[in-house]
Amino acid sequence: MFKKVLVANRGEIALHIVRTLKEMAIPSVSVYSKADASSLHVQLADEAVCIGGNRPQESYLNMQNILSAAIGTGCDAIHPGYGFLSENSQFAEMCEACGITFIGPSSNVIAQMGDKSQAKISMQAAAVPLIPGSAGPLADFEQAEEIAAQVGYPVMLKAVAGGGGKGIRFVESAEQLADSYAQAQLEAAGAFGNDQLYLEKIMLNVKHIEVQIFRDQFGNAVYFPERDCSMQRFKQKVIEETPCQLITEAQRQQLGAIALKAAEQINYVNTGTVEFLMDEAHQFYFLEMNTRIQVEHPVTEMVTGIDLVQEQINVAAGLPLSFTQADVQSRGYALECRLNAEDPANHFAPSAGTINYLYLPAGNLGVRIDTHLYSGYAISPFYDAMIAKLITWGATREIAIAKMRRLLSELIVSGIQTNAQFQQMLLIDPVFLDGTVTTDYLTNKETE
Amino acid sequence: MFKKVLVANRGEIALHIVRTLKEMAIPSVSVYSKADASSLHVQLADEAVCIGGNRPQESYLNMQNILSAAIGTGCDAIHPGYGFLSENSQFAEMCEACGITFIGPSSNVIAQMGDKSQAKISMQAAAVPLIPGSAGPLADFEQAEEIAAQVGYPVMLKAVAGGGGKGIRFVESAEQLADSYAQAQLEAAGAFGNDQLYLEKIMLNVKHIEVQIFRDQFGNAVYFPERDCSMQRFKQKVIEETPCQLITEAQRQQLGAIALKAAEQINYVNTGTVEFLMDEAHQFYFLEMNTRIQVEHPVTEMVTGIDLVQEQINVAAGLPLSFTQADVQSRGYALECRLNAEDPANHFAPSAGTINYLYLPAGNLGVRIDTHLYSGYAISPFYDAMIAKLITWGATREIAIAKMRRLLSELIVSGIQTNAQFQQMLLIDPVFLDGTVTTDYLTNKETE
Repeated sequence: MFKKVLVANRGEIALHIVRTLKEMAIPSVSVYSKADASSLHVQLADEAVCIGGNRPQESYLNMQNILSAAIGTGCDAIHPGYGFLSENSQFAEMCEACGITFIGPSSNVIAQMGDKSQAKISMQAAAVPLIPGSAGPLADFEQAEEIAAQVGYPVMLKAVAGGGGKGIRFVESAEQLADSYAQAQLEAAGAFGNDQLYLEKIMLNVKHIEVQIFRDQFGNAVYFPERDCSMQRFKQKVIEETPCQLITEAQRQQLGAIALKAAEQINYVNTGTVEFLMDEAHQFYFLEMNTRIQVEHPVTEMVTGIDLVQEQINVAAGLPLSFTQADVQSRGYALECRLNAEDPANHFAPSAGTINYLYLPAGNLGVRIDTHLYSGYAISPFYDAMIAKLITWGATREIAIAKMRRLLSELIVSGIQTNAQFQQMLLIDPVFLDGTVTTDYLTNKETE
Repeated sequence: MFKKVLVANRGEIALHIVRTLKEMAIPSVSVYSKADASSLHVQLADEAVCIGGNRPQESYLNMQNILSAAIGTGCDAIHPGYGFLSENSQFAEMCEACGITFIGPSSNVIAQMGDKSQAKISMQAAAVPLIPGSAGPLADFEQAEEIAAQVGYPVMLKAVAGGGGKGIRFVESAEQLADSYAQAQLEAAGAFGNDQLYLEKIMLNVKHIEVQIFRDQFGNAVYFPERDCSMQRFKQKVIEETPCQLITEAQRQQLGAIALKAAEQINYVNTGTVEFLMDEAHQFYFLEMNTRIQVEHPVTEMVTGIDLVQEQINVAAGLPLSFTQADVQSRGYALECRLNAEDPANHFAPSAGTINYLYLPAGNLGVRIDTHLYSGYAISPFYDAMIAKLITWGATREIAIAKMRRLLSELIVSGIQTNAQFQQMLLIDPVFLDGTVTTDYLTNKETE
């Protein structure tokens, strides 16, 4: 097992990892920016190293400083959490070069899944169903026209070398295709020195369904029951749950088999999540693969009783998976609401400030609150707005929801604005209650 | 289902019940003493009624006032929690007479199990193994001599009409029996106007093993995996866990069958717990039956996923049990540490005062904290010292213990003294770690 592990993150996930390391009796080292000096992940770790200024580029994205901290404190592994450097193949490669275990898949696999066009080619090889469109770069405009007609409008044109929203066009009808194609090509050439485009059908009225998998270096692999993360605001997940009530056990197994095939194809080791879109006919389409632990993993822990961060550490240390597919027995339903420091009444503007009173209603069966908050904690404006994950579990979905409503009604986070009331409204929304929310439901509602 | 339920208790259990009622969408009424006016069970209930002064006799034991509050607020049921009136057959009878459902077994059954000599007779009829001794009252001194010789010293003489420690003698050897017998008889006659005595073997080196059962009015019945509550200070439970690692699955089933037979014998309806002593040869002996929810029920909830308070309410409302024996699938291990407001460095003297800072480490899988505490809450000197139940769950006992140590190390309850450090010491005690603690382990250690 590792001698000492550095946690290259902040907030609730850093705290979660520090706590898991403590439960495993592995010494922990936290890193922090100046703004986070009095954070719990710093206070509760065995050691802590300041790695720079408040902006992520200066600290939590500062690969050199993080590696220096790891070497200086004698760590033999780094857990990247989610966000920041967790899907940065260069960082994973640097860890490998330094002889430090990056707790996650290999840098190769991260790179392969990070390149969305490359990922599609790998997935196609594993017979994973893809979103209809061009398999790779378009040869010319005529091919674009042909494929768009085939898959049906609306479609999306995307730069193969793309990123940051550059070289993307939404095309509603055949009449717009020529102009959009020319514009996107020009923009891509300017931004990336590469004018190659690909084309994808825009999927409407779809649910976001994802399957987390775990695979060890011996090829043992399991999948977990799917999560439904369709409640999103402008592509940001707001509520996640497991299992999805619209999915049958046969579909679950089919989906699990697809996800495992995908992982096997790229020789994936550690945990990852294959994200799908599900259309009204319950057909699934590969969206992307997240090569890290996800924000919403606690709902899976609640129904299976499997500690996913602990397992990440064990598998990264070379141990075989501690459970088989037969051991993954899902019990009941679990729900997660992301609590954000933001003001729903003011266009969800981020809300910074000091929490002068905190009440976490931690009691009763099936309640879990993952948070780095404490009374007196100051929320700085430099980072993500998520300040807590409220997780409830119930024998039925109805009870899990009732528990969440109770929890939100008791929670007190004073001194800042949060989306707690907004979450309460979602929990009584009839479309949420019948389980048919699609990924654009909330966004459409707001922009109507 | 009930229209409205009154919660006749205080502290964490009252809060637990109020929360459960909210989760079930049943209106709740809390009652409170003057000292408890700003308690959470009062703040979070739909209605609250002050029922008297601070001393339990004036309020939480004041049957008239509680019933008046129930009738005045239109409640059709009362949940008594544990302690206070929960095992008071007269109160249950008064509820029955008022047409208010007492959430628990019938007053008859409470009375039958409350009378320890009567309970033994019922249990003998159900072939439940009893602690060796006289089956009922002793005929005379000669019979006492004979039975004591048979079961072996030390033995205990007890007044049949006893209570409050009166008319009890511990007898270490045959030489002491005559004097003890005479003294106990005299004391019993004086205290109760009844000099009848019975005799029981004193069980040494035994574990406290208990089996919770649930039975509905249709005769459906299930048992839960046993709890080991052997870690006690002067008969007060300090740590409880489930399951007991020394007990085999065959013994578990045997014990469950005995407990169910006992419940059937007295036509028990609702939940209750049959307590046993287990000797070194793994023989079980009936200790008593608790006809109410117990403090330590959360460990059972954690391993089974069954909400026991919710089920109590459903069964009391006349619904059949919502699960069968086959549904009771135990997963992993759960541990509960009782956090008390007391000072271990000062003979465990109760510690009252205001909590000026509270930090509850609520995060990660398998952590639950049932407590009525909040930052600013004042602990009054009138009630039980227990201020929180710390509950952890793990796939193995080792992980559950590691999580509890982590939780205790992070917990902050400032302004008063607690037994948190004392609990930490117990969690590294080798006798605790190997699971062989007996009921007198802690007491012997302290009095050595």
